[in-house]
Amino acid sequence: MELLTARGRSVWERMKASFWYEALKKKLPILVWLPRYSVKWLQMDLIAGMTVGLTVVPQALAYAEVAGLPVQYGLYSSFIGCFIYCLLGTSKDVTLGPTAIMSLLCASYIGHDPVQAVLLAFLCGLIQLVMAIMHLGFLLDFISYPVIKGFTSSAALTIGFGQVKNILGLHDIPQQFFLQFYYTFRNIYETRVGDLILGLTSIALLVVLKVMKDSLAPTDEDTAVVVKVCRMVVWFFATARNAFVVVAAALVAYACELSGTKVFTITGKTTQGLPPFKPPQFYEDTGNESLPFSEMVKDLGGGLAVIPLMGLLESLAIAKAFASQNEYRIDYNQELLAIGVTNLLGSFFSAYPVTGSFGRTAVNSQTGVCTPAGGIVTGVIVLLSLAFLMPLFYYIPKAALAAVIICAVAPMFDYKVVKTLWKVKKLDLLPFLLTFFMCFWEVQYGIVAGIVLSGFMLLYKVARPKLEVSDHGVLVIVLDSGLNFPSAEYLSDTLYRQALLVSHPRSVILDCRHVSSIDYTLVNEIQDLLQQFRLNKVSLIFSGLRIAILEVLLAADLKGLEHTESVEEALQSLSEHHVVQEHDQSLC
Amino acid sequence: MELLTARGRSVWERMKASFWYEALKKKLPILVWLPRYSVKWLQMDLIAGMTVGLTVVPQALAYAEVAGLPVQYGLYSSFIGCFIYCLLGTSKDVTLGPTAIMSLLCASYIGHDPVQAVLLAFLCGLIQLVMAIMHLGFLLDFISYPVIKGFTSSAALTIGFGQVKNILGLHDIPQQFFLQFYYTFRNIYETRVGDLILGLTSIALLVVLKVMKDSLAPTDEDTAVVVKVCRMVVWFFATARNAFVVVAAALVAYACELSGTKVFTITGKTTQGLPPFKPPQFYEDTGNESLPFSEMVKDLGGGLAVIPLMGLLESLAIAKAFASQNEYRIDYNQELLAIGVTNLLGSFFSAYPVTGSFGRTAVNSQTGVCTPAGGIVTGVIVLLSLAFLMPLFYYIPKAALAAVIICAVAPMFDYKVVKTLWKVKKLDLLPFLLTFFMCFWEVQYGIVAGIVLSGFMLLYKVARPKLEVSDHGVLVIVLDSGLNFPSAEYLSDTLYRQALLVSHPRSVILDCRHVSSIDYTLVNEIQDLLQQFRLNKVSLIFSGLRIAILEVLLAADLKGLEHTESVEEALQSLSEHHVVQEHDQSLC
Repeated sequence: MELLTARGRSVWERMKASFWYEALKKKLPILVWLPRYSVKWLQMDLIAGMTVGLTVVPQALAYAEVAGLPVQYGLYSSFIGCFIYCLLGTSKDVTLGPTAIMSLLCASYIGHDPVQAVLLAFLCGLIQLVMAIMHLGFLLDFISYPVIKGFTSSAALTIGFGQVKNILGLHDIPQQFFLQFYYTFRNIYETRVGDLILGLTSIALLVVLKVMKDSLAPTDEDTAVVVKVCRMVVWFFATARNAFVVVAAALVAYACELSGTKVFTITGKTTQGLPPFKPPQFYEDTGNESLPFSEMVKDLGGGLAVIPLMGLLESLAIAKAFASQNEYRIDYNQELLAIGVTNLLGSFFSAYPVTGSFGRTAVNSQTGVCTPAGGIVTGVIVLLSLAFLMPLFYYIPKAALAAVIICAVAPMFDYKVVKTLWKVKKLDLLPFLLTFFMCFWEVQYGIVAGIVLSGFMLLYKVARPKLEVSDHGVLVIVLDSGLNFPSAEYLSDTLYRQALLVSHPRSVILDCRHVSSIDYTLVNEIQDLLQQFRLNKVSLIFSGLRIAILEVLLAADLKGLEHTESVEEALQSLSEHHVVQEHDQSLC
Repeated sequence: MELLTARGRSVWERMKASFWYEALKKKLPILVWLPRYSVKWLQMDLIAGMTVGLTVVPQALAYAEVAGLPVQYGLYSSFIGCFIYCLLGTSKDVTLGPTAIMSLLCASYIGHDPVQAVLLAFLCGLIQLVMAIMHLGFLLDFISYPVIKGFTSSAALTIGFGQVKNILGLHDIPQQFFLQFYYTFRNIYETRVGDLILGLTSIALLVVLKVMKDSLAPTDEDTAVVVKVCRMVVWFFATARNAFVVVAAALVAYACELSGTKVFTITGKTTQGLPPFKPPQFYEDTGNESLPFSEMVKDLGGGLAVIPLMGLLESLAIAKAFASQNEYRIDYNQELLAIGVTNLLGSFFSAYPVTGSFGRTAVNSQTGVCTPAGGIVTGVIVLLSLAFLMPLFYYIPKAALAAVIICAVAPMFDYKVVKTLWKVKKLDLLPFLLTFFMCFWEVQYGIVAGIVLSGFMLLYKVARPKLEVSDHGVLVIVLDSGLNFPSAEYLSDTLYRQALLVSHPRSVILDCRHVSSIDYTLVNEIQDLLQQFRLNKVSLIFSGLRIAILEVLLAADLKGLEHTESVEEALQSLSEHHVVQEHDQSLC
């Protein structure tokens, strides 16, 4: 007996252990793929990780520039996400790090101040973590496709144009888009020829390499080893084109500096070495004045809502796109967790807010990454750059970084979507255009305006359901969706105008086949309508109500509620009623 | 020929004239009823107007107290609405003037300052006028019944309890509900016996008179003249009970003052005479400091959104209720216009914001008013009181006014609605309770919280439509309402989990009979789904799409879109396809 109990207990223990292990696997997806890890996977992950690493280093330097921070902050923000995502991520392709859009967003809140940037990353991570714990991923459902498209297209133009000043070698151009536009053209005569030539050459080189990559990718059809190797070399240079262009430009600049001619605007002095591990500063002492935590938070303002949300949105949108392309599913709330932890921990390494990068995720996926382990390689490359390459970054020309950014954001400007929306659903152009144009003013205003407008368009649909009225002797009105409170007045008004406020009041059959929900405001309105129909000695009959709706109406004890299975039945009942009435009248 | 043209022109002129006249009638509803005005109507309107006049004078004094203003401001606000509504109103019953709820709302923004109160009325009128011109009346559709009920019940308690201090004769009690509650009980030992006795007596008298009115109303069955006259006298006293109680209490107080004993807290000195006609002050000089317009507006703050909206809501809710009871329709935007003009013009007569009064509208309707002309009589009575009776108001005991308010707001506290909501639709208790409890903190927060919560509940329904999944060999999924962007991810996730991410991917038939709308976000998601189904070599078939939806899907050129009239047809097509496939396989 005791043995049995003991055995039972051991089975229970094992079940529990397995249950906990399953739960843990959900929270630490690495436990799912690590036990199955193979040499083949390792090989692919190594190549992919290295390729992404060669992309992320120049991009990180460039995006730090967009965010208005010293270039090393780009690298500080690029490695922690790789390690965290390897543990927590549910997509094999996604790479977290600084992105053009997040950098642009951050720029408008942190005012060139690294201390603020790091605090923003900390708070942003905290908020994202709380959202993950509260399973608030669903909030992103309320950002519609036209709003996302409007935002990304506008951001591509803003970011791209923001680099024109670096291509031209102009100084002291303000950040705001319209001012930037104005000052860039006003100061155009100050263009530095060296920067311009280098910038345009870099862009041309990047474009050519991209075209080569798309058309000369290695295929299985190549049998000759020479062809294969040639293609591989081309493909490697094309894929690592950003690194290649930046290194080449830096070498040219270095040569010029050595010969004593300063023809390029270069990055200049950067801090060498790995970032120290320390908590973010919760106060700031600028020498002139000291800012307490409350003031710092106040300065970040709306950024505390916009940055975490847009970070999530960007990351999830990318994860979703690649999951769909490579046929796997991601877990919204787990992705949320990964990005929250990354930002939170990142702030201890002086990172600014990061998210999923579309460009690098595409590179990762194309290179054939098999698991998130590829990220470890990328992270190590970033750390090595920080430790040993920083002195070389001194010579990187800003025009070359500008070229990298311009080529990275250009595909994000999707002009074709306007044509598609016009063809498919013209009304959806409204939130798209509103978001697009408002984003030039302030990115966050554009997004909020787009969300609010699409919300209003949605609520308008709910408030003004289509009512199909037809005349079968009595009026038959087909309701087309739910009976929700914003439609109460409209429904009642229609019934009044069509049936009651006419010279001879008429009976109405409400065909509720398509009605899927009802709330108390509507129940109350129906009570009122039934009374009015009774006073006017005509009928209001409901037909085809689903059980759930009927139960609500019955619970409300509505006086004179009539319900039939179908419109035909209602018509029949009304005509019988009519005959009886006429009979009664003839008896009188 | 010329004659014909001339005649034609004259017909056109007449048509145009009549068209303009019709349009004018819509904007000035008095043109509709004035030409038909009769002696019988005049008689009824005179009686109703007088009765309402006897109610409004004591209430106006009391509500000014609620708003934290000198009592004469109540009367300043009571007459202009009567005249304006007579010209512009579309309901015969509604009477505009100061109300308990608006006074409570105003109190929290104007800080006992009449100059601010008048400016608020001006701005509130302006905003309401703009809303009327822009036809924004529909915004009120988004305030659901549970929110209105929660708000009015909470306001009834707040206002009623706010008068307990006057019944007890306490001084220096703060305005905020919780503080008021605390201080009222803390200072209860300072109760003035005179005030308490007078207050309780007044309440008792008011309750008895109300009961008498309800049970002893004159009926057509009374044949004896004596009975009829007695009933009429009782009915008159009962209807004008507020005036009666206040006058009686004032007489008692006057007698006490003459005999030199000050047992009651009395109203004290008021300004006599009609208010001067002058524009509201757009700056303020308090002696210590001068407030510019911008500072004054800043002080009013959220009031500029809450007061105009709640004013509209209260007025329209009342108009709607009585229109329904007395079988006529009101025009939302015209009512909006009437109340906007009233507040705007009122501010030139030192009025504070007004709206429709439930209590007085009920009195008006019950007394049998026939047209808005009754308002003229009411307005004249208020003007006469201002001109001649102000010195008498000096002696009105505050406890008597408190009794009037308590009895007026008591019926607004609707505890039964909790039971009804619980029985009919439990979920609607959430916005009710949230609004109810938050309103004790700050009325405007309560309303906003209620609106936001019911908005979220609505959006949740849209975002998570019920998907009825059934297995007919293939999966048949019935969609229950529109395909709107918040549901995109949910729909796609369901299809993935049910059909694609299983060991053997399955075909799906989406039954779209109930789908009434679609937007581009969904079209995009469907494109993605079709691709996934194709990759998995299973089908996704749409059935029963309405023409409008089908047109959108066809316009989008979705690759592999299949559509059938009914689920049966889809099932048949799938089984044929299956046979062909098996046939193909057997050939291989």
